[in-house]
Amino acid sequence: MSQLSFKFPDNSVRKFDAGVTAGKIAKSIAVSLAKKAVAAKVDGEWVNLDQPLNKGGKIQIVTADSKDGLTVLQNTAAIFLKAALAKTFPGIRFGESGSEKNGFYVDTDKKGTQVNSDDLKPLSDLMNKFVKNDTKLERKVLSLKDALNQVDGDPYQAEIVRAFAEKHDGKVPFYQVDDQLVYAKDGALSDAKAIKYFKLLNVAGAYWKGESSNPMLQRVYAIVFYKQKGLKAELAKIQDAKERDHRVIGNKLDLFFVDPKVGQGLPYWMPNGATIRRVIERYIVDKEIANGYLHVYTPVLMNLNVYKRSGHWAHYRDDMFPPMKMDNGEWLELRPMNCPSHIRIYNQHIRSYRDLPMRIAELGMMHRYEKSGALQGLQRVREMTLNDGHTFVAPDQIQDEFKRILKLMMDVYHDFNIDNYHFRLSYRDPNNTKKYFNDDALWHKSQSMLKGAMDDLHLPYVEKEGEAAFYGPKLDVQTYTALGNEETLSTIQLDFMLPKRFDLHYVGKDGKLHRPVMIHRGIVSTMERFVAYLTEQYKGEFPTWLAPHQVRIIPVSMDKDGDYAKKLDKQFRSMKLRSQLDDRNEKMNYLIRDSQTKKIPYTLVVGDKEKANNQVSVREYGHKDSKEMSVPDFLKIIKHDIATYSRNE
Amino acid sequence: MSQLSFKFPDNSVRKFDAGVTAGKIAKSIAVSLAKKAVAAKVDGEWVNLDQPLNKGGKIQIVTADSKDGLTVLQNTAAIFLKAALAKTFPGIRFGESGSEKNGFYVDTDKKGTQVNSDDLKPLSDLMNKFVKNDTKLERKVLSLKDALNQVDGDPYQAEIVRAFAEKHDGKVPFYQVDDQLVYAKDGALSDAKAIKYFKLLNVAGAYWKGESSNPMLQRVYAIVFYKQKGLKAELAKIQDAKERDHRVIGNKLDLFFVDPKVGQGLPYWMPNGATIRRVIERYIVDKEIANGYLHVYTPVLMNLNVYKRSGHWAHYRDDMFPPMKMDNGEWLELRPMNCPSHIRIYNQHIRSYRDLPMRIAELGMMHRYEKSGALQGLQRVREMTLNDGHTFVAPDQIQDEFKRILKLMMDVYHDFNIDNYHFRLSYRDPNNTKKYFNDDALWHKSQSMLKGAMDDLHLPYVEKEGEAAFYGPKLDVQTYTALGNEETLSTIQLDFMLPKRFDLHYVGKDGKLHRPVMIHRGIVSTMERFVAYLTEQYKGEFPTWLAPHQVRIIPVSMDKDGDYAKKLDKQFRSMKLRSQLDDRNEKMNYLIRDSQTKKIPYTLVVGDKEKANNQVSVREYGHKDSKEMSVPDFLKIIKHDIATYSRNE
Repeated sequence: MSQLSFKFPDNSVRKFDAGVTAGKIAKSIAVSLAKKAVAAKVDGEWVNLDQPLNKGGKIQIVTADSKDGLTVLQNTAAIFLKAALAKTFPGIRFGESGSEKNGFYVDTDKKGTQVNSDDLKPLSDLMNKFVKNDTKLERKVLSLKDALNQVDGDPYQAEIVRAFAEKHDGKVPFYQVDDQLVYAKDGALSDAKAIKYFKLLNVAGAYWKGESSNPMLQRVYAIVFYKQKGLKAELAKIQDAKERDHRVIGNKLDLFFVDPKVGQGLPYWMPNGATIRRVIERYIVDKEIANGYLHVYTPVLMNLNVYKRSGHWAHYRDDMFPPMKMDNGEWLELRPMNCPSHIRIYNQHIRSYRDLPMRIAELGMMHRYEKSGALQGLQRVREMTLNDGHTFVAPDQIQDEFKRILKLMMDVYHDFNIDNYHFRLSYRDPNNTKKYFNDDALWHKSQSMLKGAMDDLHLPYVEKEGEAAFYGPKLDVQTYTALGNEETLSTIQLDFMLPKRFDLHYVGKDGKLHRPVMIHRGIVSTMERFVAYLTEQYKGEFPTWLAPHQVRIIPVSMDKDGDYAKKLDKQFRSMKLRSQLDDRNEKMNYLIRDSQTKKIPYTLVVGDKEKANNQVSVREYGHKDSKEMSVPDFLKIIKHDIATYSRNE
Repeated sequence: MSQLSFKFPDNSVRKFDAGVTAGKIAKSIAVSLAKKAVAAKVDGEWVNLDQPLNKGGKIQIVTADSKDGLTVLQNTAAIFLKAALAKTFPGIRFGESGSEKNGFYVDTDKKGTQVNSDDLKPLSDLMNKFVKNDTKLERKVLSLKDALNQVDGDPYQAEIVRAFAEKHDGKVPFYQVDDQLVYAKDGALSDAKAIKYFKLLNVAGAYWKGESSNPMLQRVYAIVFYKQKGLKAELAKIQDAKERDHRVIGNKLDLFFVDPKVGQGLPYWMPNGATIRRVIERYIVDKEIANGYLHVYTPVLMNLNVYKRSGHWAHYRDDMFPPMKMDNGEWLELRPMNCPSHIRIYNQHIRSYRDLPMRIAELGMMHRYEKSGALQGLQRVREMTLNDGHTFVAPDQIQDEFKRILKLMMDVYHDFNIDNYHFRLSYRDPNNTKKYFNDDALWHKSQSMLKGAMDDLHLPYVEKEGEAAFYGPKLDVQTYTALGNEETLSTIQLDFMLPKRFDLHYVGKDGKLHRPVMIHRGIVSTMERFVAYLTEQYKGEFPTWLAPHQVRIIPVSMDKDGDYAKKLDKQFRSMKLRSQLDDRNEKMNYLIRDSQTKKIPYTLVVGDKEKANNQVSVREYGHKDSKEMSVPDFLKIIKHDIATYSRNE
C-alpha cells in the first residue's frame, strides 16, 4: 500500500496510508481536535472528513469554531436545501449554490412559476424533517459523463459540472440526500443534525453568473449556525438592519420615494424628508459662510468642452449622462462634478494673494450615470446635491487651510453626533513617482503639511503610501454605518492638476503670476447619502432640530380643548417650531401611539386641566410617562434641545 | 384740369385740382394747421407736404405734435443719416431704414470692416453740417429700371426698391441730399433744420429682414426730436435704463455673469448675487410653510412619457431640451415645468377630502430651450429655479384658496416694496366654448368664484373674455418694470385638464372618489427673473435685508484701530449680519466712496474716538453725513431695518 505525506500548519510532516480520511488524520493528532473537526483542506482544496484521500500535501484541519468551520456548515445546509428543492419541485434547475456572506444560498429556475417566499415554509419543514431523521449526506464521485446524465435538462448544472470536471481529472462529487442526488462542491459534513439552527430568509432575483445580460434566477437565501445563540444573534442583527434600512424608515416616516417609472435613481423628497434636508442645507451653508466660504449657484449644465479640458470626459465618461446637442452645435453636459464650475467662478476675476485662501462653496446638483443595479434608495442615486467646496490656496497655505477644514468637519460631526470615525492619509507611491503629477517638491511639501496638520491637532491617523490620486494626496474620513459597514464620510483632496489644466493664477506679493493649489472638500457629502446615513444612524429617531415634526398637540376633546390646542399650535408655529395639531376623532391611546410611531420628539396632550392652567402634559419620544409643565417651561426645554442639536450637554 | 376729391377725418369732402400738394390743402383749411403740418396720409399712404397729388381719397394731415408727426421727423433724419453714410463710405450697402421704437435707424453693410461706434462722431458732424447749411431733401421719382441702376451693386436695396415698385405702379421715390441720391419711403420733411435735436446712439448687429439665417448687417441707431427738451428727456431715460439695466448693475456689483463659452443662458451667481438669491429663497420658503405649503424636492429629470401624458411634449416641445436615451431604453427629459412632479407627489398616497386643499411647493429647477437671440442676463435664461406651487382643491374650495393665495401674494409684494401692480382676470370666450375644457358647470362656477374672491377682497381688476387657457381661467398680476415695461409678475391659473389626464382623485365625505382641481401659482416667479426685476427696481440699491453686504467697517488706522474693527466685525457676523472689514491700505475718502459704489447700506468708520467710547461713526447709503452712536444703538437700527424689510413704517 502506497504512503501519502502530509505537511501540517506547524510545518511537521507525517505519512499515512493512501485512502486515509481527514477525520482519521485529525484523530491521530488529538481526539479533541477530531471532535471539533468539520472538514479539511489539502493544498487549499476542500475535503470532507470521511473522504478517502489519494494524494498528500499541505493539510489543514478545519474546526467548527473557525470562520472556515462556519463555511462548512453553510455548504452542508446548502446541499440539504438543494435536495429539499429537488424533492419539492421535480425538474427544477439549479444555478450556483453554497456559502455566501453570512449565510448560504441556492439559485433556482423552475421555468414557469418561480420559487417564491410562500415556498419557504414547506421547504423549511422538509429540511427540519431531514434534521429530525438525521438524514445522511452520502458523497458519490461520478465521471463527467455520468454527471452530465444526472443533470440532464439543466443547462446551468451542466456548465458547472463540466467546469469542475476540467479541473479535477474528469471527476465530479455528488451527494445523496434521501432519494435525491445533487451536485455540490466538497467541504461538507455528513450529518443533518448539525444544520439544526438554520433559517430560510428570503427569495430574490439573481442573474446567472451575476451578469445582467444573463437569465435571472431565483436565489433562496438562508443562514445556519452551530449553536442556537449564533442564529438568534444573526436574526437580531438582520432585524436591526431591516429596521434601520433607510428605505424602510423612509417609507414609514414618508421621507422619500423612488419610482422607476418616472426615473430610476431619481428620488422624490416628500415634505417630511424635504424638511430634514432643508434644515441640514441651511445648517451647513450658514456654518460654511461663518467659516469664510463664499456660497454660489452655478448651472447644472456646462459645455462638454470644459469636461474635455478637465479630463473628466476622458476618464469618467462612463459615469456621465449622454451629452445634449443644441441648435448652434454646442454640446451641453449634465455635470458629474462641480469643480469646473467653481474654477470658472475663480477665473471670473484676476485674483491676488490677498484673496487667498479663496473658499468657494455650493449645494451643487450633479448627475452620475450609476448602473441601474447599483441604485439604492437615497444611498446610490443618479441625481444628487453635494455639499461641495473648493479652496484655492497658495502652496504655503496648504497646512493652515487643511487644519481649518478639519476643524470645521469635526465641529459639524459633533453637531450631528457622529463620533465613530478615523482618518486615513493617502500619499503617492514613493517607489513609482512617475505615475503621479510631476512636481516632486510640491508632493513632498504638501504630504508633510497634511501630516503636520494632523499632528498639530493631535489626531490619530494611518498613512497609506500609493493610495493618493495621481493629482495629489488626500485625507479620507472613514466611519462605520449603523450596520457596521465602513464608509468614507468626507474627503479632503489636494489637486495640483486642475489648476494647471485651467491655467489658474494669482498675483503674488512679488507682482508676478503664481499657480494656486486646489483643495476639494466635502463635509456632509451629498444630501441624499447623508440623509440615508443619518436615517440609519438615528434609526429614524431624528433629534429635535432635524425632526420633520417637532411637536404634536393632541386635545383630549376637540370640542372642549380644541381652541386651546389651536392657540398653542399657532403660537409654536409663529416661533418657527414645526408643530402639528392632531384633530382626528380617534381614541387617545391610538393618537399617542401614532405620534410615537412617527417618532415625534414631543407629544403634548391638552385637556381641561392643562387649558385652565396654561399647561401642557409633555411626553417625550421613547418615554412612557408624561410630565405636566407650564407652556414657558416646555418652550425652554424644546428650545434648548434644538439649540444643542439634541446632545444633552 | 381734372379734380381730386378728398375726405377729411370729420367726414367732410372737398375737391382740389390734380397736382395739389398736402401742404396747400392744409393751408386751405387753416394757416395754423399748415404751420404744424409735417406730412400727410392719403388712404393710409404717406405723402410729403410738397408732393403733387394725382389721386384723391381719405386724407389726414399729420402734425408735429402727434405720434405720427414724430415718425415723420425720424424718417427724415434717417434719410439724412443714410446720405451721410453714403457720402462717408462710398459703395456702402443699405438694408432697411426709417423710424423704429423711439428712434430711427439705418442698416448697413460695408462688406469689409463694418461701421462701428468710432464712426458715429464723424457721421454726427456731417449731419450737423447738413443742419447748419439747411441742406434740402429733394424728392425724385424714378422708374424701377432707373432705381435699380441707381442701387447697382447693392442686393438689399435692389430687393427693397423692387418690392416697393411692385406695389406702386413701378415707381420708386429717391431723395437727393447734397451730392447723394438715396432711396427712402415717403413721409418726410424737406428741411434739415428740423432734425437739429438728434443723437446717434450706437451700432449693433441686426439680421437682414430679422432672420438669423440671413447675413448680419450693422444697424446705426439714433434718436431725434423737434425740441431740445424731448431729446434731453429721452437721453435721460436711456441713461436711466442703462444705469438700471440688471446686467450693468450685475457686473458692477459682481452679482452674476453669463459666459456663452460654458453655456448660453446659463448664469453663474457670484457670491454677492447668490446671497440675494439665498435670502429671497429662504424668505419665500418660510413664508409658504407658514401658509400651509408642503415643501418638497423633486428631480429635474423625468421620464419623457410623463410629459407625453401631460401634453407638454405635444404642445411645448420646441421649448424643451433634447431628451436623453438611457441604457435600458428609457428616455429622460430635463423638465420644462414642475407640475407633473408635484402631481406625482400628490399621487404617492390616497388623498382624502381632509387633506384638501393640499399645497405642494418647491424651488423647482427647470430647463427651457429659449432661442439664443432671446437670452438676456438673468431675465431670459435656459436654466431657472421657479418659486412654484400647486394647490389641489375640491371644486367648492376654489374661491377660498384663491383668496388665500392672493393674500399671500400681496403680503410678499408688500415686503419687497412692490406696489405698482394691477389685476387681470381671464375667462373663456363665451361665444366659442368648444375650444375649452368641456365642463360648462365647472367653468361657470370657477369663473364666478375668482370674481367673487376679487370682490370680497375689494380688489380692482379687469375682465378679459377669451383670454383664458383652454384648461381653465386665470388671474394675471401685471406690473410695470422700473423702465415702464409691462410684465406679468405672478399668475394664478386654474387647471381642470391635468387632474383628468393624470386621473387624480380624493376620497370625499361620501366615501366616493372625486376629481380635484389644480391651481398653479407662482409668487415671485423664477429666482433669475425676480432678481433681475428687483435689481432694476432698486437700481442696485438693495434694502438692508437683501443687500449682499450690510455693513462695511473701515478703521481709520489699521494699526491703531484694527483690533476694534475686527472685534466689531466678528460680533456682527456672529449675529448673522453680513459684515465686511475693509483693511486695505488706502485713503479714507477712497474707501468710503468704494463702499458707496458698492451700495452697502451702512458704512462704519472707526477711529480712536470710537474705539475709546465703544461707538461707531455710521454713514447710511446715499447720505453725505455720518452719525456717531453707540454700538447697541447701531445694532438696534440695523436690526429694525432688516426686520421691516427696509420699509420705514
